[in-house]
Amino acid sequence: MVSADIENLIRLFSKLPGIGPRSARRCVLHLLKNKTLKMIPFIQQLEQTAAAIVECSGCGNLDTQSPCSLCVNPKRDMNVLCVVEQVADLWAMERAGGFKGLYHILGGALSSFNGIGPDELRIPYLVDRIRTLGVKEVILALNATIEGQTTTHYIANELEPCSVKITAIAHGIPLGGELDFLDPGTIMTAFSARRALDFEGEL
Amino acid sequence: MVSADIENLIRLFSKLPGIGPRSARRCVLHLLKNKTLKMIPFIQQLEQTAAAIVECSGCGNLDTQSPCSLCVNPKRDMNVLCVVEQVADLWAMERAGGFKGLYHILGGALSSFNGIGPDELRIPYLVDRIRTLGVKEVILALNATIEGQTTTHYIANELEPCSVKITAIAHGIPLGGELDFLDPGTIMTAFSARRALDFEGEL
Repeated sequence: MVSADIENLIRLFSKLPGIGPRSARRCVLHLLKNKTLKMIPFIQQLEQTAAAIVECSGCGNLDTQSPCSLCVNPKRDMNVLCVVEQVADLWAMERAGGFKGLYHILGGALSSFNGIGPDELRIPYLVDRIRTLGVKEVILALNATIEGQTTTHYIANELEPCSVKITAIAHGIPLGGELDFLDPGTIMTAFSARRALDFEGEL
Repeated sequence: MVSADIENLIRLFSKLPGIGPRSARRCVLHLLKNKTLKMIPFIQQLEQTAAAIVECSGCGNLDTQSPCSLCVNPKRDMNVLCVVEQVADLWAMERAGGFKGLYHILGGALSSFNGIGPDELRIPYLVDRIRTLGVKEVILALNATIEGQTTTHYIANELEPCSVKITAIAHGIPLGGELDFLDPGTIMTAFSARRALDFEGEL
């Protein structure tokens, strides 16, 4: 009933993460109804981005240059390397602000279920980079999932001979979190990781 | 921090209906990480669709031809014309199946708040089409909103001199609907529109 071109476009949209068939239909209609003002600029920006963006040969970030603007920024501290799973995690860290070192994107986490071993990730290259850059501290900022934590421990083991300080980001109650709404796992993790308060009542 | 090209693409994605900034970021990353397999075919399909799709000069549907495949289909009943607000509503009617007549897309509903009068919609052209096609019944299938119902009554008034049968789709409890979860307006509409059951207990 609907033209094959429209159907194909809806199918491609509905394959994007977080977009269902209904959203996909609305997006396609929205673009088709505003062809000059919306659809053409949308296509042009997609083409331009596809042509311009490359993966950084250092950290694995996506940028118009390789090494990326983070890796060549002289203001970033080359002594600290933050290891994350995905490009999205690097962006989330940068949005949070505060970290001024370099990054290393693994491209995922170890998963025997999905057949992802250390060589599918950028773990061997991580060891090379730590030696080349002369890194002093490696901060493991992987997801608080089973895969993320397995990967954290695996990397900590691998880096033991590198004589580098290895830390992992803390797990606990998220800011604004109410105990009543949190899962028992988070609460018990926060409980076990409790810290002594000093006399001023600060952490 | 993130490249300007990526930022612009995320911004364009987040302007699509139903896509928030988070979904937009995920979509853009998903495409960039699979440039050859996902992003290039996505761009190509967008270009092809933008080039191929036109608005039907008859009903207003989007298709690769004008008049569209529905308007020129000899199996469709030219005696019945179903009036809907948007292309999406035509698609929803076709998905529901059962209707074998032709359509007329208004392009919206009357709204004094948004400054949409009869001439902004395709209402004058509806009168022309009814005369040209020799339509016998006009089915008003507009949304059950204030604007949709205002438009229904306006069109019914306009079509009075055309000596054509005018009907509107029924309002009531949706299939599978439970009274306890429905708004009072829907329940009272269904109550007022109650119909006599025959002796076999059928409607």
